[in-house]
Amino acid sequence: MAQVTTKGEETRAAILATAVDIASVEGLEGLTIGRLASELEMSKSGLFGHFGSKEVLQLATVEAAREIFIQEVVNPARRSERGLARLWALCDAWLSYMEREVFSGGCFFMAASLEFDGRPGPVREAIVANMGEWLSYLEHAAQKGQERGELIVDITPKQIAFELHAFYLAANWARQLLGDTQAANRARVAILNRLHGLTTATASALPAAVQYQ
Amino acid sequence: MAQVTTKGEETRAAILATAVDIASVEGLEGLTIGRLASELEMSKSGLFGHFGSKEVLQLATVEAAREIFIQEVVNPARRSERGLARLWALCDAWLSYMEREVFSGGCFFMAASLEFDGRPGPVREAIVANMGEWLSYLEHAAQKGQERGELIVDITPKQIAFELHAFYLAANWARQLLGDTQAANRARVAILNRLHGLTTATASALPAAVQYQ
Repeated sequence: MAQVTTKGEETRAAILATAVDIASVEGLEGLTIGRLASELEMSKSGLFGHFGSKEVLQLATVEAAREIFIQEVVNPARRSERGLARLWALCDAWLSYMEREVFSGGCFFMAASLEFDGRPGPVREAIVANMGEWLSYLEHAAQKGQERGELIVDITPKQIAFELHAFYLAANWARQLLGDTQAANRARVAILNRLHGLTTATASALPAAVQYQ
Repeated sequence: MAQVTTKGEETRAAILATAVDIASVEGLEGLTIGRLASELEMSKSGLFGHFGSKEVLQLATVEAAREIFIQEVVNPARRSERGLARLWALCDAWLSYMEREVFSGGCFFMAASLEFDGRPGPVREAIVANMGEWLSYLEHAAQKGQERGELIVDITPKQIAFELHAFYLAANWARQLLGDTQAANRARVAILNRLHGLTTATASALPAAVQYQ
């Protein structure tokens, strides 16, 4: 059954798509109702009717970014078999999401997490929850790979998730700050090399890292 | 010969030490002359005498952070032999700088680089120059390690620098956002494992990664 949306929901979704994009460039703190009203050519009072306060708008924006991330990264990777294949599919979809510039200012969550790491409150908690959930998802895929005998077991799934996540973070950083257009490929090479170092002899084939160099 | 400093230089250095610390928590944009005056219990006009504008203050703060980084990370590592030993010493000193919480809000440069990646201008340029210089320094140490026959040569020094930097970025991120107190150790394990994978049979000994787990 198709999802039924009202005009109000559609408007809200359109507002939030713009909000996520502004926040990826200027930060969630730069996302004021005034700034958004000017971008959308809507009245501030109209926007207040949807969100009421800056914090409510920020929280709704984090949730909207989460939905985009699930749609762009998690859902495509779920078509791959659980374990190593899905772990690689998640990393590959994630780098593709960076390369396709889904958000104008680079990864929304990286920007938001650095912006809010020193600012306690509900927005920070929402970002922490999202990031923790994503790291757990990678960790779970790594653990499945170990259970299936595809990945060696003398490294914790948590350490594997940390290392793969690190390469993504670094690629987003190098791309956004240094304008390094090869950054996503550097992360692909790093991730594939790392996964090749962790696979057992019986594991299903991964692409060779060299094809991305 | 001891460096001769005037009273004005001492005051300026004390102001900038506070400025770097505020910026590590609240960002360089949060670093206004008013905010700094209130923290230091100085008059705004006194601070204007030193810096004149917010941008001049921000640029002086980036330069002050750079000097602290050189003193805390680069200088200690320069006591190690060039090549692999120095590459590891740089990474180890860098993680120690994170663990000792030299800045209240975690690594100043990580915070500043995410804050300014979408904001063109002299402050962004100063951050980019500093980050590029640091990555080149790591890359140069890796290249020396290859020239000395300590590191394998089928990976570029640039890729090695990217990967080592990634683990640091991820540790700072996990520590600041998720409060993961094991983050620096996770990065040490990751860096040592990576370096062990890159060393030739003739390379000088590195610590075993396992001792940090």
